[in-house]
Amino acid sequence: MSAFSPPPHDPRVERFHSLFDAFAACGATAAGGVHRLCASPADGEARAVFAAAVRDAGGTVSIDAVGNQYGLFALAPRHGAPQDDVPQENVPLVMCGSHLDSQPQGGRFDGALGVAAAVAAGAALMAAKKATETAGAPFAADFCAVNWTNEEGARFRPSLLGSGFFAGRHDAAYALARTDDSGTSLGEALAAIGQCGNDAPPKTPAAYLELHVEQGPALEQAGATIGIVGRNWGAAKFEVRFDGEPAHTGPTPMPRRRDALLAAAYLIAQTRAIADRWPGIVHSSVGRLLVLPNSSNVVPSAVSLSVEIRAADDRILAEAAALAADAVRDAAARAGVDVGVFEPAERPGRELPRDMRDLTAACAEALGLPHLGLDTISGHDALSLLGLCPTGLVFVPSAGGIAHSEREYTAPGDLEAGFRLLLEAATRLCRAGGMVEAAIHGAADACDPVHTAR
Amino acid sequence: MSAFSPPPHDPRVERFHSLFDAFAACGATAAGGVHRLCASPADGEARAVFAAAVRDAGGTVSIDAVGNQYGLFALAPRHGAPQDDVPQENVPLVMCGSHLDSQPQGGRFDGALGVAAAVAAGAALMAAKKATETAGAPFAADFCAVNWTNEEGARFRPSLLGSGFFAGRHDAAYALARTDDSGTSLGEALAAIGQCGNDAPPKTPAAYLELHVEQGPALEQAGATIGIVGRNWGAAKFEVRFDGEPAHTGPTPMPRRRDALLAAAYLIAQTRAIADRWPGIVHSSVGRLLVLPNSSNVVPSAVSLSVEIRAADDRILAEAAALAADAVRDAAARAGVDVGVFEPAERPGRELPRDMRDLTAACAEALGLPHLGLDTISGHDALSLLGLCPTGLVFVPSAGGIAHSEREYTAPGDLEAGFRLLLEAATRLCRAGGMVEAAIHGAADACDPVHTAR
Repeated sequence: MSAFSPPPHDPRVERFHSLFDAFAACGATAAGGVHRLCASPADGEARAVFAAAVRDAGGTVSIDAVGNQYGLFALAPRHGAPQDDVPQENVPLVMCGSHLDSQPQGGRFDGALGVAAAVAAGAALMAAKKATETAGAPFAADFCAVNWTNEEGARFRPSLLGSGFFAGRHDAAYALARTDDSGTSLGEALAAIGQCGNDAPPKTPAAYLELHVEQGPALEQAGATIGIVGRNWGAAKFEVRFDGEPAHTGPTPMPRRRDALLAAAYLIAQTRAIADRWPGIVHSSVGRLLVLPNSSNVVPSAVSLSVEIRAADDRILAEAAALAADAVRDAAARAGVDVGVFEPAERPGRELPRDMRDLTAACAEALGLPHLGLDTISGHDALSLLGLCPTGLVFVPSAGGIAHSEREYTAPGDLEAGFRLLLEAATRLCRAGGMVEAAIHGAADACDPVHTAR
Repeated sequence: MSAFSPPPHDPRVERFHSLFDAFAACGATAAGGVHRLCASPADGEARAVFAAAVRDAGGTVSIDAVGNQYGLFALAPRHGAPQDDVPQENVPLVMCGSHLDSQPQGGRFDGALGVAAAVAAGAALMAAKKATETAGAPFAADFCAVNWTNEEGARFRPSLLGSGFFAGRHDAAYALARTDDSGTSLGEALAAIGQCGNDAPPKTPAAYLELHVEQGPALEQAGATIGIVGRNWGAAKFEVRFDGEPAHTGPTPMPRRRDALLAAAYLIAQTRAIADRWPGIVHSSVGRLLVLPNSSNVVPSAVSLSVEIRAADDRILAEAAALAADAVRDAAARAGVDVGVFEPAERPGRELPRDMRDLTAACAEALGLPHLGLDTISGHDALSLLGLCPTGLVFVPSAGGIAHSEREYTAPGDLEAGFRLLLEAATRLCRAGGMVEAAIHGAADACDPVHTAR
């Protein structure tokens, strides 16, 4: 339960809920989730909702080379500029957002919450600007709501592809060439839904803030409404391919078999055992596995699988990852198969900047929202932007800690609390020209024109 | 190496090799195998080759309700019958055949050898009948070459579906309703290639003989050309479905996870361990496994897999199957998931009839082919017909024992030896009106018109 009691009939909150619901309808499943894989037709529908909402609120939409969708709200005064609705190079930019792609049969909150809140915040800021223009310019920065492409890594790997491109980690050619399990590339899939753009990405933001559901049980257990992320767990991820030999499952003598699925089974069990050595400190999983030829009468000749190790401590992560590498070799040797490890990625744990945490904590205090600091164990687009600009990440509770499931749920009051927090922080940042320190101390009061422009 | 040296330019042998090669071209893979799943377009091509070859040799083709394809050769004299090319109720029938469907990326010998040999034998018998009609009727039985539908159980489960229908084990509605992993039914797939027939199956044969590649190393190791199957290993097969809960692979605490793939891994490892308890006596495997939602960031919520246990001894089979059932429960309990077992099938080991073994041994002796008795560990359509009629199963060597692989290979001399053995046995059986005892002692000599009609 949230301690936050929303005032009735706030059109900004109503717009937020209505936009959230519109996203949830795109690729909706009967069980209340969404099946909205990156660059699928359902993703195309959600992107159309995004674009319409931005334009309806007086913003403009651009799409970069990897399909990242930007909703740009020109808030700061233009001095003699020919177009007053286009962000300008000399005006700081505040960016908020998340992603609209989902896991297969995923939840409707994951990602969509942060996008809906960002677009609704942009709309509220735009309305505030228009309502207060005669009283002087309220904002010294522009605002951008962003929908990052392929955050999930479900249809195309790696995850965080769009935000990684924005941050310069991947080039566009690499991103567009990623293929799904049927061989379709991201570029082809984006083109099929008309979302392969050629707009330049916006300038590097002065600050980036992302609102997301927690996807774990900590906030619910602590009775807090807002989680302020201080750090992310490090992660080691890699793809393994075991290559054995197809053979008849009947007459082929057992010692002659080179069973790729048996090797995979040894590795999966061992991957779990590694997490069990460090309870609560290491999480591990194998979520994806493909078998060839996958016929009940044929000894599997090839198996591909995705291994993940996450840890609260980088030293332990390194130790666990080394054990996983040993487990790969042992599994191959026991089953007598060949093995290759592909796309190994080790991402250390990193601190999120103190100033953005202080800003979100100050906003939570101002709004009377119970908050606590916590780690994020899952990856988020905000982590892509770490080091690029002051970056913040805030969570609202996930009922039962359930995530990546149609049963994922966050109560409406918690959704609204998250939106209000994001709006408060975005308002302060835009008023302060994107300067975080100034925003921390720039609490709005009830007389502020921004807060009365409903 | 075979001890058999074929005489040059025997048109019956040439027809056999040419038909075998024509089948191998249907669904041929670059690596020398075939990808000819049941009722696929490639299977349709092979079925067209079958029909053309039968008709070209003076036979007629019929297709029953599950797509079994019969090439009928009217050999015995008709007394006053209006049509002399249609088998008659009062004429005994000798049947030989196998299957044209393959495993995914399978071998070109498995099944196709037995069908090519049966059709070529029918053609040779028909030619012999025509060549000797003025000298009196040489045959007292008709001959049928058969191509059974879905022997492999690769695209549709269970295996031996067409021969099981013929033997009365399955009804047509059950068989046609089997679906592949994309949800297409056998009935739909057969209709799509024009192979859903409505002809009545032929009468129960007086004798059935199947030629197949061994798919194991015994003949090669013993230096024998012909294997005469005395018994099949019993087998226990079942489908398992583990149901857990989708969850984020990152933040979800390990003790809360209900990982269906982890359960599958435990079961796969344990299934192997069961075989290792009885070396050379129990074979086991998991060849097929499907994961949902199969995304690298989602704890797998559901896994389906196919478990097989085969044993040389029925008592040990029962013990091993009981251990496998325990392993299913243990795996589910350890991973905290639900489990269901579906389509359990336990097929005991059975003896093949002594008289058919004696007949094929006598034929091998007459042809000078080194032979030995052995078990079959793999299933074959001949096993479906056990109990229905005198049934024989003979093998030729598989190089390296390799099967269900594009690397499957049998030397041309061994293929020919198998064909000559089948032709000899079919000739004797048709001359003896399908009576096996008479055929055993009915060795043809060089003066026999059948053997001179080239």
